[in-house]
Amino acid sequence: MQIPYKSSTLLPLRWLNDSKTIEVIDQRCLPYELKYLEIQTVDDTYRAIKDMIVRGAPLIGISAAFGMVLAAKNGNDFCEADQLLRSSRPTAVNLMWALDQIQEVLKGSELKSREEIYTQFLNKALLIQEDDINRCKAIGKHGSELLSKLGKSRLRIMTHCNAGALATGGYGTALGVIRSLFENNMIEMIYANETRPRQQGARLTVWELHYDGIPVTLSTDNMAGYLMQQGLIDAVIVGADRITSHGDVANKIGTYSLAILAKYHGIPFYVAAPKSTFDMSIQHGSEIPIEERDLSEVTHINSQLCTVEGINCVNPGFDSCPRELITDIITEEGCL
Amino acid sequence: MQIPYKSSTLLPLRWLNDSKTIEVIDQRCLPYELKYLEIQTVDDTYRAIKDMIVRGAPLIGISAAFGMVLAAKNGNDFCEADQLLRSSRPTAVNLMWALDQIQEVLKGSELKSREEIYTQFLNKALLIQEDDINRCKAIGKHGSELLSKLGKSRLRIMTHCNAGALATGGYGTALGVIRSLFENNMIEMIYANETRPRQQGARLTVWELHYDGIPVTLSTDNMAGYLMQQGLIDAVIVGADRITSHGDVANKIGTYSLAILAKYHGIPFYVAAPKSTFDMSIQHGSEIPIEERDLSEVTHINSQLCTVEGINCVNPGFDSCPRELITDIITEEGCL
Repeated sequence: MQIPYKSSTLLPLRWLNDSKTIEVIDQRCLPYELKYLEIQTVDDTYRAIKDMIVRGAPLIGISAAFGMVLAAKNGNDFCEADQLLRSSRPTAVNLMWALDQIQEVLKGSELKSREEIYTQFLNKALLIQEDDINRCKAIGKHGSELLSKLGKSRLRIMTHCNAGALATGGYGTALGVIRSLFENNMIEMIYANETRPRQQGARLTVWELHYDGIPVTLSTDNMAGYLMQQGLIDAVIVGADRITSHGDVANKIGTYSLAILAKYHGIPFYVAAPKSTFDMSIQHGSEIPIEERDLSEVTHINSQLCTVEGINCVNPGFDSCPRELITDIITEEGCL
Repeated sequence: MQIPYKSSTLLPLRWLNDSKTIEVIDQRCLPYELKYLEIQTVDDTYRAIKDMIVRGAPLIGISAAFGMVLAAKNGNDFCEADQLLRSSRPTAVNLMWALDQIQEVLKGSELKSREEIYTQFLNKALLIQEDDINRCKAIGKHGSELLSKLGKSRLRIMTHCNAGALATGGYGTALGVIRSLFENNMIEMIYANETRPRQQGARLTVWELHYDGIPVTLSTDNMAGYLMQQGLIDAVIVGADRITSHGDVANKIGTYSLAILAKYHGIPFYVAAPKSTFDMSIQHGSEIPIEERDLSEVTHINSQLCTVEGINCVNPGFDSCPRELITDIITEEGCL
């Protein structure tokens, strides 16, 4: 496996100015291969989000913004392109937020040429991406200050799924806090939950942290309670796909179970996310649409059937945690 | 996939009187293939237990008892054979219990010929097996009476790992309760947790229940909290590998997390196990030895690497639940 540069500077999406296309890391290929895919159309952007070539709430938003740039370049209908991208995945609200940002450009667009719109879309998309990296770094700084107060010189932290460089513009939200703590020599061990069914923990988080030299231990999702019982976990940090006005948090399936386990053991449970993850239009976690994904993700692993063919199963992609289970939400503006 | 008979009458181990060997279902091959392996020596019995060709606390005990029969047939040293079998797996106490039963025969053995000992070992092993099936049926009966009192006409029950016919002489402990409820038309749906890393839920429980026509839905381990939050689970039933005098229970990794989740949601959490699972020599769950299994079970699925090669990981095979988290322990003698 060849890794060209440190994953902390890893950009899961890059604008290629020469070809006027975007290039994304095909996250389905990690950790086996670091492979870039060039994306030239809004349809391909839609598919990249839907098929989880790119994933992670902030990165979904950034990808959609660049999808609109490609729509402008290719002369597509903006309204159709916007609707298509909004329909790609239902849970992450950053998707809607980023597309709303792009829509701002269109206000008074009858006065603008298509080329002007393209340029403004591009500048906006680049800004959203750069801005996201800066927000992640601010989240990292606030989070590491908060966790310093736990009174331990070095922390053992559990995380779930991947809220890292690969889920954002770069640097990461939950892993941004971990990177910031690591820069301050405050990490003893990160416990990464595998995160079935798609194993983003085993495939992405372990890869990202390992490459950055941050000590990481992989465990299956059902070991979380045991590790807490053994006194091995000082804190849990996860990302978020949507946060309601009331402070309820939707995140990758398994987050809710983890929050209950942390509560039972008196372990602080933190959510790290940019403000674009907040959806002030809804109050309660139960109002967040939970994506039901293809059942083959549960019945198959690495394309191999691992149960009785055609068996009933469920595959909610996310779950939602009530505010009571969350110790703090860490944003780029500080802790809530 | 060809299944020759109903799994409720499925015997995971059979004594073949003609060849004086045992035949076991190779549980590593399920659900893809129902394949029997003939076992002729005590060494092969040891390997069958260690490599999980046979697994499940009661079945491990039964297999070890027949291992001693093979030792007697082949003229092995009884003390060595006994020690070898005891060392095969550390957590299930039924293994020690069954070997103690066999040892009883040796008392005053200087008066007995080797052939007498062989015959007595065989009779004892056959008795342990038959007895286990009867105990499972009694557990089923007591359990289904207990669960009838929940006041629901049809139940939605979650289970973890496989505590079924395949884990016992036949019929099952946790799945024995479920079979008994099903015979009384009281099952709406069984939710089977996948049970990483070895996926006994996805591979064995789903196979057993599906073949018996008992409605079953597969989910990943980290979906348990979500399913409870959605009000889909009326009760949880699991098996046990060892129960202390104090009532703490060791069972497959993930059981402890599940018990906490059930408690949080006010869902009753039952353990179904024969009395041979009790270890009255210890009081607290923390005294139960927890087997650390090969790390490749976590890093690989179906022999395929699913994370960064050589990464740190943990693989405790079991965890232990304090008595406070358990609503009732269902044994062949009734509920405790």
